Amino acid sequence: MTEFRFIPVETLRRQVTEIFLKAGMTEANAAAVAGVITDAERDACKSHGIYRIEGCLRVIATGHAVPDAVPQVIESETAIIEVEAKGGFSNPAFDAARETLMARARKLGLAALVIRDCLHFSALWHDVEVLADEGLAALSMCPSYAFVAPAGGKEPLLGTNPIAFGWPRPGAHPYVYDFATSVAARGEIELHRQAGKPIPDGWAIDAEGQPTADPEAALAGSMLTFGGHKGSAISTMIELLSGAMLGEIMSKEALEATGGAALLPRHGALILAFAPEVFAARSARDPLAEGERLLEAFRLQGARLPSQRRFAAREEALEKGIRLTKDEVARLARFHENGLAALDD
Amino acid sequence: MTEFRFIPVETLRRQVTEIFLKAGMTEANAAAVAGVITDAERDACKSHGIYRIEGCLRVIATGHAVPDAVPQVIESETAIIEVEAKGGFSNPAFDAARETLMARARKLGLAALVIRDCLHFSALWHDVEVLADEGLAALSMCPSYAFVAPAGGKEPLLGTNPIAFGWPRPGAHPYVYDFATSVAARGEIELHRQAGKPIPDGWAIDAEGQPTADPEAALAGSMLTFGGHKGSAISTMIELLSGAMLGEIMSKEALEATGGAALLPRHGALILAFAPEVFAARSARDPLAEGERLLEAFRLQGARLPSQRRFAAREEALEKGIRLTKDEVARLARFHENGLAALDD
Repeated sequence: MTEFRFIPVETLRRQVTEIFLKAGMTEANAAAVAGVITDAERDACKSHGIYRIEGCLRVIATGHAVPDAVPQVIESETAIIEVEAKGGFSNPAFDAARETLMARARKLGLAALVIRDCLHFSALWHDVEVLADEGLAALSMCPSYAFVAPAGGKEPLLGTNPIAFGWPRPGAHPYVYDFATSVAARGEIELHRQAGKPIPDGWAIDAEGQPTADPEAALAGSMLTFGGHKGSAISTMIELLSGAMLGEIMSKEALEATGGAALLPRHGALILAFAPEVFAARSARDPLAEGERLLEAFRLQGARLPSQRRFAAREEALEKGIRLTKDEVARLARFHENGLAALDD
Repeated sequence: MTEFRFIPVETLRRQVTEIFLKAGMTEANAAAVAGVITDAERDACKSHGIYRIEGCLRVIATGHAVPDAVPQVIESETAIIEVEAKGGFSNPAFDAARETLMARARKLGLAALVIRDCLHFSALWHDVEVLADEGLAALSMCPSYAFVAPAGGKEPLLGTNPIAFGWPRPGAHPYVYDFATSVAARGEIELHRQAGKPIPDGWAIDAEGQPTADPEAALAGSMLTFGGHKGSAISTMIELLSGAMLGEIMSKEALEATGGAALLPRHGALILAFAPEVFAARSARDPLAEGERLLEAFRLQGARLPSQRRFAAREEALEKGIRLTKDEVARLARFHENGLAALDD
């Protein structure tokens, strides 16, 4: 029987922060990276929770991430705020530029944040949720490793290219979606492989470009996008807007750039922030009230909003603590005590 | 055997323009509306071609569109350009604001065009293609009639909410996608009904929210989005950004606002324009060259880019003329001669 411990959210946050401080991160970097990891674990978003600590320590240990990078925010007369992550993680770069982005969006109606040269491992919902909590709508996207073939193609060219969107809801958690544009996560195919199970139709093609139910063949071939040619078009747009347009690394190059999929991808990211009150200034309607009317109608007909499972887990964790297995607690203690050396256990 | 005529593109454009002039449109309005209709017909995009003339004349005849509306462009210190269509069609409003939008995007890196209170019938590819031809990336979206249920829902709340994206390609047609976020077009379900054929799985639910293969039940129920909950999330974002955020009509209201689906929806539209050279100014990379590398790799593996069928039809039409049936030619002549009165034939 698995034994569990309930760790208060802030206790976990402190412990993870200390792990990263010991790994050479600055206070700001440790707080930012530990913040998104703790928030994901709190939200029962395990794939982006404490499981990610090892990967972060590994890219630092191998010299692929700069733990004490100081993000540099570059302002201009445009609607674009740029932040040079300088080989550090995307999260402190976002934190460094967040206030500037919000101020610009409120002034101009919309603004774009370009994060340059960052290591990226976190779910995009975190950033758009932070902005939506401040009353801004936000759209975020980035490339990733090229594991996905375009519709009608045969070989991987596109990343699993995630897209996230946040919309502010007065007095409630924001409307937030965040998903990969691949039909499934690569990890899910790996789980099928380990379980010796075939993968569903439409998930992947083999190295010859033929549909396959064999997870081994899928991992050696290409994943497919959700929603057929429409999903492929959206993934291509993400590659063009958050790769090509920024002059940053494309998914196809990301593997070479970091030296293998065991490490985190290094690329850029694009976040658009919209101020609804500026867009609707000349309308008699209240944009947020209109949003509520729509989302309330969703609720009345029993349609589930995205992120609701996450918000429910959050409320439980804030009340009872985050539920971790005894093994997870022990692993955290090892990282806390031995830092990078825990990797060699 | 169907007989065909080949009509030079500019001949058709002139004829359609004259039809709208006779219906009371200003020169600019007639040129804009006839322009998108002719361009669609030229591109073998029949669903947005001359078939739309009748609908346009009908909304004018019933007083639901203002044929001589003069769009008013409103500039501000923000990154948002607004244009009041004043109950006219979206197309002349876009034309009126286009230069201002492009100039603002080139100055600020990105800018948004908000079209207010317009009648909307045209495919979104037209506007994003115009912008991409001028070197800008563009993303366009709008609500429509609420025929689509959200994922897990039972009743129509979302429009078929189209989204279109354009990316400039030096020396080539731009990369352009444009699709409805419903899994199928309503017209396709209607065609199945007429043919007495069942519709495929996943297209629609009946009025009780149950999956149905019966086109009648589907038309009385709700259409579904492409790509399951991911497509539903994108459709919801379109509803929030181009409906709620602009303080314009939501899909749910559009039917009431125009008095029935036989007429064109009246709502707002949102077009984002991005200047890649501004976004990439601090990168050593050429954003358009990076885009070409990606799209060339698509071609090399045989992946079809969206809009290619349209571009091929265009080249053929520009060379040989637009192929119309004898019936279509006769119908055009009737509209040309009798204007709105041709509707009573």
